[in-house]
Amino acid sequence: MEIKIMKNILDRNQNKANEVRKTLHENSVLMVNLISSPGAGKTTLLERTCAALSGKVRMGVIEGDVTTDRDAQRLAMYEIPIVVINTEGGCHLDSHSISKVLPEFDLQNLDILFVENVGNLICPTAFDLGEEFKVAVVSTAEGDDKPGKYPMIFRDARAVILNKTDLIPYTNFSMKNFRNDLAKINSRVPLFEVSCTKNTGLDAWYKWLTGKVF
Amino acid sequence: MEIKIMKNILDRNQNKANEVRKTLHENSVLMVNLISSPGAGKTTLLERTCAALSGKVRMGVIEGDVTTDRDAQRLAMYEIPIVVINTEGGCHLDSHSISKVLPEFDLQNLDILFVENVGNLICPTAFDLGEEFKVAVVSTAEGDDKPGKYPMIFRDARAVILNKTDLIPYTNFSMKNFRNDLAKINSRVPLFEVSCTKNTGLDAWYKWLTGKVF
Repeated sequence: MEIKIMKNILDRNQNKANEVRKTLHENSVLMVNLISSPGAGKTTLLERTCAALSGKVRMGVIEGDVTTDRDAQRLAMYEIPIVVINTEGGCHLDSHSISKVLPEFDLQNLDILFVENVGNLICPTAFDLGEEFKVAVVSTAEGDDKPGKYPMIFRDARAVILNKTDLIPYTNFSMKNFRNDLAKINSRVPLFEVSCTKNTGLDAWYKWLTGKVF
Repeated sequence: MEIKIMKNILDRNQNKANEVRKTLHENSVLMVNLISSPGAGKTTLLERTCAALSGKVRMGVIEGDVTTDRDAQRLAMYEIPIVVINTEGGCHLDSHSISKVLPEFDLQNLDILFVENVGNLICPTAFDLGEEFKVAVVSTAEGDDKPGKYPMIFRDARAVILNKTDLIPYTNFSMKNFRNDLAKINSRVPLFEVSCTKNTGLDAWYKWLTGKVF
């Protein structure tokens, strides 16, 4: 019974996601759905990306949070349009909430619309938001075994960002193990090894992302 | 409609959780539900705890994982009873799955039954498993803002374990900010500041936990 209910919810979500995607395509807006565990560094990644691409790419952000607008506050200085969706305890964003906030953006004047999903490596993966693709963000501090343990997001992601590489010397994280684990799940996904706080490794990400703009 | 469905699911879960709790009480078994983000260190905490309390407290573990038995493999050397529940993509354990595996344990010869929940700081909080209490595990690498951003688990937890304190010098984590944030959510919860990999700060946790055994 729960399975049937879940199917209905996902079907309705899929229909609305297709509508959202159509609207975005009509306006040539690339929507990128960022998914990670809490604290993997999605907001810091957005801070770096907004700073680096400002003036070259017109960006906007939808901030998904269980509660608070803390992440949006951190991004406010970049003077880009930001809309916060508080899920009030909910564990993921869905396409209906995206559809509702889309009119807040001037889509004709946007190139990329980032969605920072709720911090959760599992549930957000099941919900198409109408994005062009999902990006998985994972921190070295979470350990090198995450692709095998949480395969869904690593299977779906169009790119994987491994953040906090500066912490590797202080942990038991093995880059070899991580790469092998990821290769078993998704052998061809681009992997960007970065430190958002130390600002290293990000140029390849900017280049890849900019190449996806319509 | 989704809210009503969720209420039904939670009601059914609650009824079964009450049954589980009754069985555990009849056998004087303390069930502890460990909840954290992926990679915060629940398994390493269990490894340390099993090693430290072996011979003093009779322990068992239910390992909840989306897929794989990797965590159980890590605990196998401690020669304690372990049962793995693979949720096959599911984002949390529920009381029905706990109830099904309970007969695998010799409850008369157990003092503590740990449940290592699926790595997820949101969904597991909503599901009573029949545990005596929940413990939140959070890593310094996730940032000092997690209690405010994910308040549910920090509000419900009987204890909070802040792991990976050895990484603080290499991050922008502020202990003051973390403590203030936590105090706003749950001012009286015991906080254990530990490093499971470096084996520091854990004695207070062992003492507190042992004091809860029936």
